[in-house]
Amino acid sequence: MRLSPAITELMRALRTLPGVGPKSAQRMAFQILERQRDAGLQLSKALAEAIERVGHCSVCRTLTESEICELCANQNRREAGLLCIVETPADVLAIEQTGQYQGCYFVLMGHLSPLDGIGPEDIGLDTLAERLAQEPISEIILATNPTIEGEATAHYIAELARQHSINTSRIAHGVPVGGELEYVDQATLGHAFSGRKRIDFDLF
Amino acid sequence: MRLSPAITELMRALRTLPGVGPKSAQRMAFQILERQRDAGLQLSKALAEAIERVGHCSVCRTLTESEICELCANQNRREAGLLCIVETPADVLAIEQTGQYQGCYFVLMGHLSPLDGIGPEDIGLDTLAERLAQEPISEIILATNPTIEGEATAHYIAELARQHSINTSRIAHGVPVGGELEYVDQATLGHAFSGRKRIDFDLF
Repeated sequence: MRLSPAITELMRALRTLPGVGPKSAQRMAFQILERQRDAGLQLSKALAEAIERVGHCSVCRTLTESEICELCANQNRREAGLLCIVETPADVLAIEQTGQYQGCYFVLMGHLSPLDGIGPEDIGLDTLAERLAQEPISEIILATNPTIEGEATAHYIAELARQHSINTSRIAHGVPVGGELEYVDQATLGHAFSGRKRIDFDLF
Repeated sequence: MRLSPAITELMRALRTLPGVGPKSAQRMAFQILERQRDAGLQLSKALAEAIERVGHCSVCRTLTESEICELCANQNRREAGLLCIVETPADVLAIEQTGQYQGCYFVLMGHLSPLDGIGPEDIGLDTLAERLAQEPISEIILATNPTIEGEATAHYIAELARQHSINTSRIAHGVPVGGELEYVDQATLGHAFSGRKRIDFDLF
């Protein structure tokens, strides 16, 4: 039995979403057509509008509708002189949710990956170099992912920062809060030991 | 930090899809805007087109772009005189995939649920009654879900069929093929015993 072409095409298009397989796509398509036509039309419009309107911030490269994103437009943050380097806009969101950081960001929109042909220009490191030369930045915090590509990217940017004589730090790697030692992988546990901090009783 | 309104609206719209929570919606929105803008536009179009074009088959009520769906338009199937009653178009698809059934369908697009105000007319039983009066149907196969509402609906339709003197059967309930007895629920195991079939050695 062949489904009608419009339904088949809808299922194919839904499968391009991350985490959606053939069975989920079928469930979504039928639910939209049977009971949620209004919500489906709203989703269609929201997709078209977001794709049309959302571009990249000219300062930090994150996704935004404006020329400059809300965080880069914030004068207090720019004056803090801190620049956090992350791979994706989702990372910015995760860091903002901690409420611990009050500086600016630079979003690479990826990581260095020579095998896939992704070089320094593709992740905006030319823009970053210009910014390091012009702005008074006191510290760069490298918050790329703790993967091989993320570490290589962090290393490359650390070299870049050294050329501009800017202090550079890497976010700490160690045992996640709430985790159990038994289930933590060896590399993480190794990092947790090599990066151990002296307990200073004066602080208590 | 507030995301730009177009991204927030896209995430909200994605959350209306079944099985998509806030975190998945965020991942989908960022993936579309960062890497899959073409696929996103195609999805937007596919949604709008499917919602505009797809309606209900005037004979069996399933979802289709045509006036009459492919299965109802098939003369061989109509001549078989079999009518299978299911709750949703997804059920039709599942039964067609078995390749075991060569008759027609009637899709209720739901089940009787008096508490939610869903009565016989809402699931097309008036249309079904007309059809039973006009067409030469030899057997009705009740394939509604084995839930309380599905059973009640099956019972209601069985009464309707009796008024038209049409043979009616219910699909078998029992232990699923490949399942283990230990993990089968009591009601299913009860059905498997009460519906046991004599092994006829002549068949071997």
